Order: sequence, then C-alpha cells, then structure tokens
Amino acid sequence: MLTALLLLPFAAPALAQSDAPDPLPSWNDGAPKRAIFQFVHDALDKDSPNFVPPEERITTFDQDGTLWVEHPIYTQIVYCLERVPFVVRHRPHLKDSAPFKTVLSGNHEAIARMGTKDLEEILSATLTGMTVEEYTADVRKWLASAKHHHWHRPYTELVYQPMLELLRYLRANGFKTYIVTGGGQDFVRAYSDSVYGIPPEQIVGTVGGTKFAYGKSGQPDLFKEPKLVLNDDKAGKPEGIHMMIGRRPCAAFGNSSGDREMLEYTGAGRHARLMMLVLHDDPAREYAYGPAQKLPNSRVGNFPQALYDEATQRGWFVIHMKSDWKRVFPFEK
Amino acid sequence: MLTALLLLPFAAPALAQSDAPDPLPSWNDGAPKRAIFQFVHDALDKDSPNFVPPEERITTFDQDGTLWVEHPIYTQIVYCLERVPFVVRHRPHLKDSAPFKTVLSGNHEAIARMGTKDLEEILSATLTGMTVEEYTADVRKWLASAKHHHWHRPYTELVYQPMLELLRYLRANGFKTYIVTGGGQDFVRAYSDSVYGIPPEQIVGTVGGTKFAYGKSGQPDLFKEPKLVLNDDKAGKPEGIHMMIGRRPCAAFGNSSGDREMLEYTGAGRHARLMMLVLHDDPAREYAYGPAQKLPNSRVGNFPQALYDEATQRGWFVIHMKSDWKRVFPFEK
Repeated sequence: MLTALLLLPFAAPALAQSDAPDPLPSWNDGAPKRAIFQFVHDALDKDSPNFVPPEERITTFDQDGTLWVEHPIYTQIVYCLERVPFVVRHRPHLKDSAPFKTVLSGNHEAIARMGTKDLEEILSATLTGMTVEEYTADVRKWLASAKHHHWHRPYTELVYQPMLELLRYLRANGFKTYIVTGGGQDFVRAYSDSVYGIPPEQIVGTVGGTKFAYGKSGQPDLFKEPKLVLNDDKAGKPEGIHMMIGRRPCAAFGNSSGDREMLEYTGAGRHARLMMLVLHDDPAREYAYGPAQKLPNSRVGNFPQALYDEATQRGWFVIHMKSDWKRVFPFEK
Repeated sequence: MLTALLLLPFAAPALAQSDAPDPLPSWNDGAPKRAIFQFVHDALDKDSPNFVPPEERITTFDQDGTLWVEHPIYTQIVYCLERVPFVVRHRPHLKDSAPFKTVLSGNHEAIARMGTKDLEEILSATLTGMTVEEYTADVRKWLASAKHHHWHRPYTELVYQPMLELLRYLRANGFKTYIVTGGGQDFVRAYSDSVYGIPPEQIVGTVGGTKFAYGKSGQPDLFKEPKLVLNDDKAGKPEGIHMMIGRRPCAAFGNSSGDREMLEYTGAGRHARLMMLVLHDDPAREYAYGPAQKLPNSRVGNFPQALYDEATQRGWFVIHMKSDWKRVFPFEK
C-alpha cells in the first residue's frame, strides 16, 4: 500500500488513462474519437511544442446540425413562423401582407416555398420591438411547449449526445467552449446554459442590433431593432470570433460550408489544433444530407463535395454520424 | 484548541471580517468604500432579497479616466499620432495630406487643434490594413517604450491603485470584471491581461471591423478594416454590453457622460446594485476636471453638473479622488 502510494506520481498518468471511465462513451472507436484524445493530450503536454497555454484553450462549435438537429428547418425559423399569429393580433394590418398571409394560411408547401425576402420580413416582424428580456422570456416559454414534428419531442432534447460528451470533456480539461452560430445570438442564449452548459457570454451568433431607450415607465432598457450588426456565417464566423472573443480558437467544429472559414482560421494557428465536421449520413437515426445526398425543400446548411475535399487536404476530421456515433440522442437507450 | 475548532463554523464569518487584511488599503474610509463593502456583502448574502446569483455577477468598468489616466489625450490617440511617420514611410503620398502634414510638423498646438475629421483620417490610416496579430504586437512594442510626458513613465503604470484593488476584490468574491470602453477594443486587449488581469474576451470596446482573407502566403487571417461596427460610447455602452456579454451588469464604474447610459442600464436591474463615478478633483496628484473645473485643449470625457445631479438623484456614488483615495498610483510610496 505504502509502495503503491510512493509510486503514484510516476504511475498516475497511465493509471488515469486506463482506469478512468471513457469520457466519450457515445463515440465508437475510430479516427475522430482518437483525434479528440490525441488533441487534448498534445494541448495539455507542457513538454510538447504543441502545448496550448491555458488562456488560449478556446474551442468553437457551430450549433445547427453540429450540436442539435437542424433539419428540415432551423428551430429559430419555426419559432418566428409560430409567432406570426401573435404579431398579427397586435398589428392587424400585417395580415393582408403576402408573407404573413402565407404563414397564416397554414399551407405547408407554400410556406416551404417562401423566398428569402419574405422570410426576412417575417423575421424582422417577429424578432424586434420588444426588450431583450421580454424576448428571452418568450423564447423560453415557446421552447417549453414546442415539439419537432418527427420526434414529437422538445427541440432542446434533439441535441447530439456525443457532442454533449465532447463539450464536457473539453471543459473538464480546461478548454472554454463557445457556440459560434449563424442563428440569432439572443435566441441561442435563451437556452444555451441549460442545454449545453454554455453561458450567454460564450455565444457568438448573428447579431441584430439593440437600441438603448426608456420604456413606458421610464426604465432604461434595450429594445431589439431590425438592424443586422453581424452576419455570423462563412467569413462572418472568424470575424465574429475576433470581435466577441479576441483570440484564435484551437479547435473548431461545424457541419457545413458556413463553417469553412472558421475551420480554416482555427487551423492556421500555432500549437495543437483540431478541426472537425459532422457529416449527416444516418437516415435511420437522423437524416442524410451530405455530398451524396440531397433533401427536398431544405433550407439548412450544405456539405458539398468541395468541403469534403478541403477537409481531406487540410487534415480536418469528418465525423460520420452513422459509423462514429454509438448513440445519437440522450433519450436513446 | 478543540473548542476553538468546534466553534469555527459559527465564528468564521465574523473572524474573517475583522482579522483579514483590508482588501482596499488605498481607499480612505468614506461613503464609496463603505458602499463597495455593503454591495459585496448584499450580493453574496443568500438570505437577502438582494442576493445576486453567481452567474449574474458581471461588473463593467470604463477604462480612460476610470482605470487609468486619460488626460490630456487618450493613450490610443498618442499611439496613432506616433505611428504616423511609419505609415507615411510606407505610403509616401500621405505626407502631403493636411492632417499627416500637421502631425509630421511636430507643432503641438496645431496637433491639439486638429478637428474630428482630421483625427479620424489619422486613426483610419494607422489602425487598419494589418492583421489583428500584427496590430497587437505593434501596440505591445509601442507601450514598452512610450512614456507619458508628465510622469515620464509608461502609460501602463498610470493605472489607479484603488481601482486595481477593487478589481481584485470583486474577482476574489466571484464577480467577473469587464472593461467597457469607448477606446478601441483591440488596443485595450493588447495589455488588459497584464495590466488589469482582464483577458481579451472580457473587453468590450469600440469595434473596427475585420475582414477574413488569405495573406500573401495563402494563410487565412483577419485584417483590420476602416469600418465602424460598434461605437462603444454613451448608449453604445449598454448596447455593446448586450452584444458581447448578453447580461445586465450588477455594478458599473465610469467617470464621464459617456458612461451615463451604462450606469442607468445597470441601475435598472434587480438585486444588489453598485454604480460609481470617479471625479477627478486632485490637481496635486493627478488632474482636476469636474463640474467646477475646465482644462484647456482637452479631448477627454467630461463630467458636467447634470451628471453629478443625476448621480445624486439615482443613488450613484461619486468617488472624489482627492479625499477618497489614499494612494493614486502603484508607484507612489
């Protein structure tokens, strides 16, 4: 016993490796899982040239399609569409305007065919005018009852169990985890802490402006404005990362062309690096929409062959959902 | 001895209070110092309606004039003016342009009289075009040798000792400290960690845009652009706080009209609150420029009578540098 204790300082690392429970139990053994372990090992190894100083352990995750289900339509768009009746009740003149009429008709095909301009009109009407705190409260209320039409479960349950494990594993090793999403920053902030353990100040997203003003009772408040401050997609992702974080990440995770620049920017830094793309190739457990598959009426991000080729060329890892993930959702047995 | 140990859980809070060294030794006993202690006590008291949940312990500090000397001219402007010869060497056509000619003439009075448009031209030429990493390296190099003309010391030594103590005291009690400055975000990030213990991701400042592009050797990088994304002054302060942090602070510190909206926004939240303004009324140890004093050729923020009146009316605390601070700078004995 005493001998064992004396040996501990030398034996500990190996012991920890073999005796500790697998921190990524929902991942099958394969190249991506091994790459994650290798990255964390290198980043924490003080004697390695790949050592990442603690303050630079910044990791960034796309949300839609990377941390939770994005198909067939981004959750935030569903929220906006479902808020239309409420908005029209308060601004009745809108009900004769084309996009609002379409949404109120309930005709799913017509809604799916709506153009970008129509959609922007809906977003602008449903996401602005209220205080930031009213908005957060409304998003939370909606999420508590809204359900995905396929799984009949709250959207907040449609998160990928392997990615939740990865977030926790990185944080346990001193990495800060950020979400860097094309979705609305305030939308994601409303649930990011309870769903992913990521606080509002670690959400970088598309930013609609706010306006400081005095409310009806004279209280100073921030009101959401129809003004685009940051389009946090494609080149906007590294630009947003710099604006909000001010450091180059050492690891980045995405699933579409919208994440390309973020992964390139991350990959061009010094020390240990990890860049990964989730490929949706599992129609039985989720969906399949990669270079080989197209989905009808899809508005979500795409993963073209060119992105796959760039990943191969730059040494990024492609996570094949079907073969790399033992379990997809937390609610699966 | 045993009895003392048994009593410890009950006796500890009182003991800690009386036996611990004063965490704010550079503050004289007075209303502001007592207000700081009261605020921290209330915010941490789980049984009080003023209890601030740990994740909401966000505090925001203006920089120029609140954490370090701003008079007679913001440090970043000095940096820009001193970079002009370098910029002109690389872009010789600029030397015939009016504002650059004025700066190169070395005529201090003419430089002090330069208008806002001229100054903006200088800022745009000296703060853009390089990568964000090149810029940070250049600011650090400059700060290592530049000196304030009055004290003949590096700008980074002209920080207020009482405020450094306050930052540390708040952090020791679980508060996150942010800088919210009208100054350039990337400028402050270059030294905030070493000077204030505040990392880059906790700096909210005026944001010039960046552009993601591929450098000469094809490497993906971010280049600083002459584009204003956020003017982090007046109403821009609470708007910037929401964009970058996404939470309403529970304490805010400033020294001029540029901080008014930030203090109002902070004050309108729930639970324990603390809003404070530093008043420069100490011409012997620093400068005097408050409601009663004007300084010639000053470009720095002002503290008009209306702000003083609002502070009184809303229960904000005015820190009188002369009477409230025992010591102003770390280098004083």
